[in-house]
Amino acid sequence: MKQGVFITFEGIDGSGKSTQAQMLAARLTAEGVPTLITREPGGTVLAEKIRDLLLFAEEDLAPETEVLLYAAARAQHVHKVIRPGLARGAVVICERFTDSSLAYQGFASGNDPELILKMNTFATGGLVPNLTFLLDLKPDQGWCRVQERSGSEGTDRIEAKGLIFQEKVRQGYLQLAAAEAGRFCLLNGSDRTKEEIHQQIWTLFLEKFPFIPVGNEGKGGS
Amino acid sequence: MKQGVFITFEGIDGSGKSTQAQMLAARLTAEGVPTLITREPGGTVLAEKIRDLLLFAEEDLAPETEVLLYAAARAQHVHKVIRPGLARGAVVICERFTDSSLAYQGFASGNDPELILKMNTFATGGLVPNLTFLLDLKPDQGWCRVQERSGSEGTDRIEAKGLIFQEKVRQGYLQLAAAEAGRFCLLNGSDRTKEEIHQQIWTLFLEKFPFIPVGNEGKGGS
Repeated sequence: MKQGVFITFEGIDGSGKSTQAQMLAARLTAEGVPTLITREPGGTVLAEKIRDLLLFAEEDLAPETEVLLYAAARAQHVHKVIRPGLARGAVVICERFTDSSLAYQGFASGNDPELILKMNTFATGGLVPNLTFLLDLKPDQGWCRVQERSGSEGTDRIEAKGLIFQEKVRQGYLQLAAAEAGRFCLLNGSDRTKEEIHQQIWTLFLEKFPFIPVGNEGKGGS
Repeated sequence: MKQGVFITFEGIDGSGKSTQAQMLAARLTAEGVPTLITREPGGTVLAEKIRDLLLFAEEDLAPETEVLLYAAARAQHVHKVIRPGLARGAVVICERFTDSSLAYQGFASGNDPELILKMNTFATGGLVPNLTFLLDLKPDQGWCRVQERSGSEGTDRIEAKGLIFQEKVRQGYLQLAAAEAGRFCLLNGSDRTKEEIHQQIWTLFLEKFPFIPVGNEGKGGS
């Protein structure tokens, strides 16, 4: 394979993005497919420093500052990690990408999603995922997972915004998925085991990218 | 005075911006005018942290990352310092603003100035200086001052780009000044003492803002 494929995982906090991204990456690696897993905000030393500014800032962030810092971290991540990975022919799996900015800073925070898309198109040089898995679940279910993960305290600034905010994020994601049905796979992220969800992701992945040389499993013996 | 006025100083490295900004601020303060002096990139704790990322990054910055980080720092600076200062009725004097991004990251670095302006209009909420002093001098003259200031080493990442780059920045500034002659005051920054330059700035300032309640000096006895 010459140019790799770019897969993103999206969803509200606690929706299972990390888990599913890691399970897909592990499976691809086991199948011998060159795979790179990464996350946003972060992914390079500089981008991780920007992440720290975003999540643990000691002063209030202006909404514009937040949008621009996420876009700056993304630009660096695309430039240093994602594009080089794709150029090597890898499957690049990224937890969160432009859709997160549209859902969180746009739809849920009241900034114009069109403007945020423009900032991000500039940041990414127009890079759009080949496939985006959106893990959908109700905010109270995600919230329980976040609380379990972080104990009674220690949630970051975004997660601390509460359930109403998470529901707005969720609705934003659903709008994005409806507008780009060809790119998004909408997955029910609740009432199923992580293995069941993974199996659905794997099947969808193979359908979408039949040219990727994995083992025969799930491909109907091709 | 109800709403303050916003003054910026621009010019290549070593052009005397800091010196002149400080001299103007000191004079206004001595005249009893509420004055706030600040600089970019920086001006808030978070913006200073972004400044450090920009000037002393350990990894190559993608051009888009650089543009977005400057814009992010500017958004925070506008939100936390400049707009509150203007709302209090102060004369806000800022060393570098959007024009620096246009000259350095746009004209001199080959990024589209239109795009950079869009990012910055988003960052600043459309804030434009009431008056911009552009200190113009040849890059080799600025360079000598930078070298004197920093010794034989210790110049930052921007200043280290050399004379050809500085000349491109200068030409970018001259283009900006020509396009907005009503806002820019183009000043000869060489072959004059800093006191002579300051006196010209003071005269121009009083002409432009006759409503600011300073002492009678230089105002023809009004």
